[in-house]
Parts: sequence; C-alpha cells; structure tokens
Amino acid sequence: MTSDRSAEIRVSEIFGPTIQGEGVLIGLPTVFVRTGGCDYRCSWCDSLHAVDSRYRDEWRAMSAEEVWREITRLSGGKSVMVSLSGGNPAIQPLGELIARGHSEGYRFALETQGSVARAWFADLDVLVLSPKPPSSSMETDWQAFDACLRMSEGRPQTVLKIVIFDEADYAYARATAERYPHLPVYLQPGNHTPPPADDDDATIDIDGVMERMRWLVAKITEDRWFEARVLPQLHVLLWGNKRGV
Amino acid sequence: MTSDRSAEIRVSEIFGPTIQGEGVLIGLPTVFVRTGGCDYRCSWCDSLHAVDSRYRDEWRAMSAEEVWREITRLSGGKSVMVSLSGGNPAIQPLGELIARGHSEGYRFALETQGSVARAWFADLDVLVLSPKPPSSSMETDWQAFDACLRMSEGRPQTVLKIVIFDEADYAYARATAERYPHLPVYLQPGNHTPPPADDDDATIDIDGVMERMRWLVAKITEDRWFEARVLPQLHVLLWGNKRGV
Repeated sequence: MTSDRSAEIRVSEIFGPTIQGEGVLIGLPTVFVRTGGCDYRCSWCDSLHAVDSRYRDEWRAMSAEEVWREITRLSGGKSVMVSLSGGNPAIQPLGELIARGHSEGYRFALETQGSVARAWFADLDVLVLSPKPPSSSMETDWQAFDACLRMSEGRPQTVLKIVIFDEADYAYARATAERYPHLPVYLQPGNHTPPPADDDDATIDIDGVMERMRWLVAKITEDRWFEARVLPQLHVLLWGNKRGV
Repeated sequence: MTSDRSAEIRVSEIFGPTIQGEGVLIGLPTVFVRTGGCDYRCSWCDSLHAVDSRYRDEWRAMSAEEVWREITRLSGGKSVMVSLSGGNPAIQPLGELIARGHSEGYRFALETQGSVARAWFADLDVLVLSPKPPSSSMETDWQAFDACLRMSEGRPQTVLKIVIFDEADYAYARATAERYPHLPVYLQPGNHTPPPADDDDATIDIDGVMERMRWLVAKITEDRWFEARVLPQLHVLLWGNKRGV
C-alpha cells in the first residue's frame, strides 16, 4: 500500500458523543477529534496529552477515511456535530475529512488559537477562534489571526472564545473584542488545575473556577459589556478533567 | 392622574444585569423582569414568590413606563437583553414595554409555558416555550400551545425548553420535539429544592442536579438525539436559589 504520509492526521483521541462543554455550542452532543501537536505551549494548557511531544507515542497517524470511520462508528452513523480540537488542529490536514462528513450531513466545528490559517477553514460550520491571553505566556500574532478570519469569510459561524484568569486577561479580552466588534464573544473562567494526562482523578479546583466565574460576571456587568457571554467549562463541572467524556 | 389599571403590569421583581442562567441565551448579561401571577401550579415551581397569591402583597402594579425606567436605571441606559419571566408573563400586558425598549435598542426574550397566546409575541426577539412535563402535574393544552407558536411566526427566535426530572418527563420531551421538529430543543435537569421565597440560603441539591445532568447526557447520546442541547441552570450552580442574581 502506498500512502501519502503528508495527508495523515495526527490524532490524540477520538471520543464521544458527549455534550460540548464550552462556548457557542455548549450542551450540544458532539464527537470530538482531538489532534496531536501544537505550535503553542500555554502555561495552563488543559490538554497537554495532545500538545507535549512526550505524549507523541500515544498519537496515531490516521487517514481522513480512518478518522471518518471512527466518527461514524461512535455516532452510529447518525449525523452529529464533530469538534476538531487539539492541540492546534489547524496544523493538521482536515479538509478531506470535513468534505467527507459534509456529504453525510455531519457538521464540523474547529477550535484554534488562530496562529495558522488554512483554506479549508472556509468549509467549516463553526470556527472558534481562541486567542490566548497574557496568563498563557503566549504572544498573539495578529497578522496570522487576521489571516484565519479572512479564510473563514463566508460559510462558518465565527466566534471568539477567550479564557480568563485575571485582570490582565480581562483587559486583553476587552481589547480583542473591540478589535473585532462583529464577532460574538465567549468568556471562559480559567481552570488552574490541568491534571497530568495519566491521572483522570486529579482534583479540580471547582471552587476556584466558580469564584472566577462569579468575578467575571461581576466584571462584565459593572463594565456594561452586555454583548459578551460568560460560560464555564460544563464538562469540568460534571466530570472533572476526566478524559473521554 | 387617571390610570388605566388594565394596562398595568404586575411585577414580582426586576433585577440584574446578571447572566442568563438557562437555555438559548445562557451566559448573556440580562435584566430580568419577573411578573407576578401564573395560570399554572407546577409541583416543583422554583419561583413560587412570583406565582402563589400568598405573595401577592409583594407584587407591584407598574405602568410600562415605570418598568422601563427601572430597566434603564439597572442597565445604566445601555441596551441589554431583557428577560420577561414569571410566573407566566403572557398574562401581563407587555406589548407597550417591548415597543418602548426596542426604540432604544434593547432586546426582549419571553419565557412561558405556552398556555396563553398574545399578539405581541410577534414583537419579541426570543420566545422560549417551556411546556411542562408530567412531573409538574400540569396538563399541556396543545391547542393553546400551537396558538402561541402561530403568534410568534416571523420575528422571534423560538425555542423549546423542557425541564426533566425522570423517564416520563424525558418521553414527554421526545414526543414534544417530534411534534415540533423545526424548533431547537433545550433540556434542563430539574432542581428538586425550590426554596421558600423568604429563605435565600436554602440548601440546593446540587449533587442531584448534576446527577440528573449526567443521566440526561447519557440518555440523549444513547438515543442519538443529537439535535437536543442539555444545559443546567448555571445561576443555581453559581449562587444557589438566591434571588436577585
């Protein structure tokens, strides 16, 4: 068998259906394709098992057809929302998978920090751009971010989702929203306790998450930022940082 | 001053802005106008202070202009989503208030069981129809419900929200969704611990709510009901049943 290795998708995990825990699709049954590898190293990354190369052995190079078969198996062949996440899924070749799924009525949402633009963003149903605030210790490349936005003109519903831990993150979110006034904004209180990938039972700082959530609600209402939505990570409240749910 | 008593709105409370805790607008800053009085008596009503006539002394008859002034005071004059709830807000004369708010860029969502149809439903931005399942001990009048739907043809985004405690409620939700396949469906795990209106600190059965939430997610994914969304009452998770937040 000849294979075009360049067209293979590096997959960390495929799981679901379970509900989307975050952002614009919160509560919606979803199959998750988490790709392996990331051009960022956020200080508080909650998916290190899909980012850090020390987990590379757990990742699997799969063809679009192989990923598609796993999605249809999990969903029993019934069309469902598919979330492409990571890591940064934008560094994977996902256009073929999206085309394959669309032909069967599946929908695709992609979540990325907006550091790498791809022509196939235009084929998505939902594009969640999640630029990383100062607490991540990452620097946003706005030129790359704008390129992602240009790619998504047309089809996908495009929204901003910004994780917030502190005042500096909040100021970053305000500035980002002002830069893109046409994009809906979802703010998400940060979770300080990413577990090691091999410990599903790590204790989550739920009280901290809820406290930041209440603080964020107070901030946006005091500032009369009435266009922003504030949502916690539901799956963390329901299942902790357990993987596969 | 002459007054047209029939045009007065019976108000239980006006509060906010705080985030909408439920359904399609979850997470969005909102000012809440909770009207007093209801044609239903759901067994698990979580807003008895706006329903039961023994709280009638706490309700205030206000003109649309008075309600409007309070909304603008709370929102600092900045346009915001206004949630009209109750009780059953459909039994109040809210058309004038909606027109007044629209002229200043405010938006209006109304939540009702769908037992009373009003021509002014057509002027809403969002209509949340929340028919009550068997556990409520109420009987749905589908003729009245259909009349509500007919009123809302045109402008408002219309969705179903159904509270679910048990299998019978779930079956009711399925049947309702099948009856109205074009309406988005939001399922909400029931909260068994409505506090007395004078006890903000009543202990909420958070564990029970979260358990029902996990059960509901398992149900819809097993049944491949991939169009439904499952969302808890965020405000209950954040603040318990405390009023005014």
